[in-house]
This record gives sequence, structure tokens and C-alpha cells, in this order.
Amino acid sequence: MKSGLSVLGEFGLIGRIRRDRRRNRSVIVGIGDDAAVFALSRGMAGLVTTDTLVDGTHFDLSYTSYFDLGWKAMAANLSDIAAMAGKPLLAVVSLTLTGKQTARAVDDLYRGMRALGNRYDVTIAGGDVVRGKEFSITVAVIGESHRDNVGLRSGAKPGDALLVTGSLGASQAGLDLLKSKSRNKNSEFTEKHLRPAPRVDEGLTLARKFELHGMIDISDGLASELHHLCTESRCGMVIDQGALPIARQAIERSAAGDKDPLDYCLYGGEEYELLFTLPPRDAVRAIKVLGAMGTDCSVIGQVTSGRSVRIIGPDGKARLLADRGYRHF
Amino acid sequence: MKSGLSVLGEFGLIGRIRRDRRRNRSVIVGIGDDAAVFALSRGMAGLVTTDTLVDGTHFDLSYTSYFDLGWKAMAANLSDIAAMAGKPLLAVVSLTLTGKQTARAVDDLYRGMRALGNRYDVTIAGGDVVRGKEFSITVAVIGESHRDNVGLRSGAKPGDALLVTGSLGASQAGLDLLKSKSRNKNSEFTEKHLRPAPRVDEGLTLARKFELHGMIDISDGLASELHHLCTESRCGMVIDQGALPIARQAIERSAAGDKDPLDYCLYGGEEYELLFTLPPRDAVRAIKVLGAMGTDCSVIGQVTSGRSVRIIGPDGKARLLADRGYRHF
Repeated sequence: MKSGLSVLGEFGLIGRIRRDRRRNRSVIVGIGDDAAVFALSRGMAGLVTTDTLVDGTHFDLSYTSYFDLGWKAMAANLSDIAAMAGKPLLAVVSLTLTGKQTARAVDDLYRGMRALGNRYDVTIAGGDVVRGKEFSITVAVIGESHRDNVGLRSGAKPGDALLVTGSLGASQAGLDLLKSKSRNKNSEFTEKHLRPAPRVDEGLTLARKFELHGMIDISDGLASELHHLCTESRCGMVIDQGALPIARQAIERSAAGDKDPLDYCLYGGEEYELLFTLPPRDAVRAIKVLGAMGTDCSVIGQVTSGRSVRIIGPDGKARLLADRGYRHF
Repeated sequence: MKSGLSVLGEFGLIGRIRRDRRRNRSVIVGIGDDAAVFALSRGMAGLVTTDTLVDGTHFDLSYTSYFDLGWKAMAANLSDIAAMAGKPLLAVVSLTLTGKQTARAVDDLYRGMRALGNRYDVTIAGGDVVRGKEFSITVAVIGESHRDNVGLRSGAKPGDALLVTGSLGASQAGLDLLKSKSRNKNSEFTEKHLRPAPRVDEGLTLARKFELHGMIDISDGLASELHHLCTESRCGMVIDQGALPIARQAIERSAAGDKDPLDYCLYGGEEYELLFTLPPRDAVRAIKVLGAMGTDCSVIGQVTSGRSVRIIGPDGKARLLADRGYRHF
């Protein structure tokens, strides 16, 4: 019989969560005290980021398992650390449970968080479990980065090349497939949506090899993140439509649905790819360096003076790119 | 006209939150990037804690202002840092808004968090704002402490004196008054519930003057925290009922209601006082040191071998103290 949380109780639940005693060397005191205690490496700056996922707004349990939900909650935060070119160290997790989640479901949620976290030696070192009427999960991740080489949204400079890792559009295409009535929901099409891979190693490699300029991760969609970079860096951008690395899944899903593959690429969220700028000479080297670790990377345009974000279409004409993507309000 | 958040939008809201540009020297990059960047003082360990407050479970807006809610959300986390004898540095805040909260309400919430945070030079350096069906606030606070002198739940030793700051029961008594039909809800009675003062300075002073043993803050009630200390320190405790510093408000509220003042003192939550253990000789000095900074402190019992938590009543007999307090499940 599954044990409901009303039977298990808050402290029983915390006991279950504590069972995993894996520690990384950054965590001095983990779950079970008033706060977690951690160490930063000598001379490094700390990073902290947090993301909340709410049932019905950010995930749908009809096609998302608790394991995948845990994975994604961790991925969203690791991606933010990656976007600072940082190394993630530990996480704290706040759960709001409605009483309907079984102990097994909560175990699966933590298994999902740990499955991804363990890849980067990230420990869940504390958190909070509360009761509410709506199920949600808030993860905060602590990381570290070199103080003088952080990937900032404000670091883009006119003349920089604009680069993006991987391909774009597969997450949204996978989501559309999951929501559709199609019976053929194979994991190749849905993996990027359900188990996104944050670009932690890529961010760290870029920080090791280059003096970083602008950097952000793609969580709300490419168009939206381009505007964030421009706003924070007080610059403009021009994108080559033909250079955009549109994911194969986006192209195939477009054939089945009614969306343009370009829409998936420009406006699809939850990609967790890195969007960054470097001087053109470094950009060429960055593509090689990331390629050597198996990660595709493309130059998709350049940083300009002015403040507009434009895209050059196949007709050779530049048009303004709308600042839209996923909005919570 | 009040502007609703659906009009203001997520980024408009973040713009409002960013307006406060106060920084402390620990915060290198604040709101507006993928993660906040912070520094720890040389040789110090980092601390991180998080707490979620859910509408209807942890607060009632019929008698709690948004300002007070912000204050309390910050206080709960600062108190956890205080319980590690740490110095709080920065906070990240995740809000789940239903669309019913006005921009004014959100401003008030942040004003409340900042009013308390500013006392300790704590900056709000980032966070997340999402949409949900239930209003909630999750605050995570980063702090620092000496690596070799942290106040741990596991540090209590048989023979230690058991001490508590301030008086106990006023928060729960204030809550009962707020929930009652009484028209006389003066602030002297409700302040400890609505605007609790975390014992940050006291924790730091204790860390400076003493080699710390066990330490915890009282968030779920004295009885519950005594059990936490005993579980983590693998020890027992015996409490002198006559030595308990029962708050005047608890005594007066008892006269008006039907609760025993002792119940307020033992089981009332959200006190945010420090409960700690020190060798008896240090305990006497601690009372003097804290007294010199205007903070009352009492010895309420001692740490024993064994694993039971007992209380000695006026009849001189020891009885077991039940492990109960506020439970979310």
C-alpha cells in the first residue's frame, strides 16, 4: 500500500529525504540543521539562483512523471548556473505538497533531482516541506565561478559574434507532441522537453578558455533571451535566419502540425541552451573547443550598436524581431 | 487606480523589484542576471536556508498585512541563519502570484522584507516570479559563519546547561488574539507574532565569545525544538518548569482565553528565539554577555545522557514532555 504523506508526516518525509547521504566536498553540513553549511573554493565567488515550478502552470502530471519533474526542476537551476559559467555545488528544495502526493511520488521527485544533480556532484543539502492547496517545487542552487570571469547578461559588446549551443525548437516541439493525440510519443522527440540537459560543462569550458562577454541560457525562448541580453548590455543585435540551428524535431513536428519550424526555434522555451557573445576570433575557436567535447555550436548573428533586435530573412531584408516568448503574466 | 499584475507583467514587476538598488559588499551581481553573484569573507563557510509560506496555511491576510508577511518571510530565514550563529548576507525570493495581488501589495511585501533585511545589511539579490492558483512566498537566505564554530543541532553535550533567549508564548498568544473577536488588538500583544525579531546579533555574539555547543531556533515550539536537539545530538534533556520564561502576553491571554500559559510557552510556534546549550560556566557568562546587549536569557534545564525529554513540575516530579508543536502534515 502506498503511504500518503498525511500518514508519513513531515519529519518522516524529511527522514526519507535524508537517507541519501551522498555528499560533495563543498557541503560541510547537509539536511537536518537550521541551514546547510558549504564551502566555496579559494578565491571563487558564490552564485545563487532559484526557480519555482507550479502544477498546471509549469508542468502537467498527465504526461510528466515525478522523476522527470524533479529532473527538470534541477535542470532549470543548473542551467542558470551554467549561464554564469559557474560550477553548481549544492541545492535546497522547498516542496509544497497538497496531501495527494504519495511517499513514492516524493521519492521519485527526489530521485529525478538527484539523477541529474549527481552528474555534476550537486548535493541536496536542505529545504522545506509545507502543506498547501497547490503542488509546487522551488529549487535554489548554490554554485561558484571565477570572480573576474562570470558570464553576464550585461557583457555583450558591439562587434561580438552571437553564438548558441545545440539546436533550438526541440523542447517546444516535444511539448506539442506530448499534448497531441499522437500515439507515437517516442523519447527521441520528447527527451529535450522532459529531461533537458543543462550546459554546465560547456559553460565551465568557455570560462576556462575565454574572457567571457555576454551570456544567458534559453529558458523563455531565443527571441526573448536576445532582448534580455540587449537590454542588459545596452546594445542591439542582428540575427541571420539562415544560420539558426533549427532542431530536426521542430522541422518534423511542423510537418505534422501547423507551426512554422522557425517559430519553434525563435519562441520555444525550456531549451536550456547557452546563448553567448564573443569577439569573432574567439567565436571560431569556441566552436572548435565545444565541438571537441561533442557539443555543436553556431554563430547566429552579431551584436550591434543601437538597441534593436533584427532578423535577416531569406529575402536579405532585416525586420524587427518581436520580444515574445513564454510569459507567466 | 491600482495596477493588477496581469497589466504590469512579469518583467514590469521585476523592474519594480529592481528599483531598490541597495547593495551590501557581499553582493557582486544582484537582480537581473541568471544568478546572483556573491562573495564570502575570507576563511568563512557559507550558509543557506529556505522557507516557504503558503496563503491559508502559514498566514492569513485578513489580519496580516503584506508588509508584515514580507517581514515574517524574511524573519523565518534570518532566524535559521541566527541559529547557526551566522551572519546573513543576501536573499533570493520566489513569489507565486495568483493575479489577485496588486502591484501595491507586491511592493508592500518587498518593503516588509527589506525593512527587516536592511537591519542586517541583507540584500534581495534575485528570485523568481511565477503564476499559480495559490499565493505563496519562498525566501532563501545565504549567510556565512566561522567554519569551526557553527551552532549545530548536533552539538549538545550531557552536562551542558540549556538556555533560551527572550520569553516564550507571546507569538501564539498574539495569534490567538488576532483570531479572536476582541477589539483590543494592540500592537504590544501582536508584535511578536506579526513582526518577530530574529536573534541574529545574539547568535553572532555567542559565536564570538564562546565555543558553541547545541543551537536551534524556536520556530515550531519549544517542546518540538528540544526533541530536535536531542535527536540530532543523541542526548536527553530535563527542563525546570519553574525556570521557563513565560511571556507576559501568554499569561494575560490565558486569563482571557482557556489555554494554560505553560501551553503557550511549550508549544507555541514562531517565537524565533534561540535555544542553545553551553557548559554551565559559559552559561552564566552568556547570560551576562547577552544581558549587556539588552537581551534576556534564561537557563531552563540541562542536557542529560539517555534520550528522553522530561520536565520537572512544581511537585518536583519529572514527567515526559510530548514531542508536539506545529505540524504541516
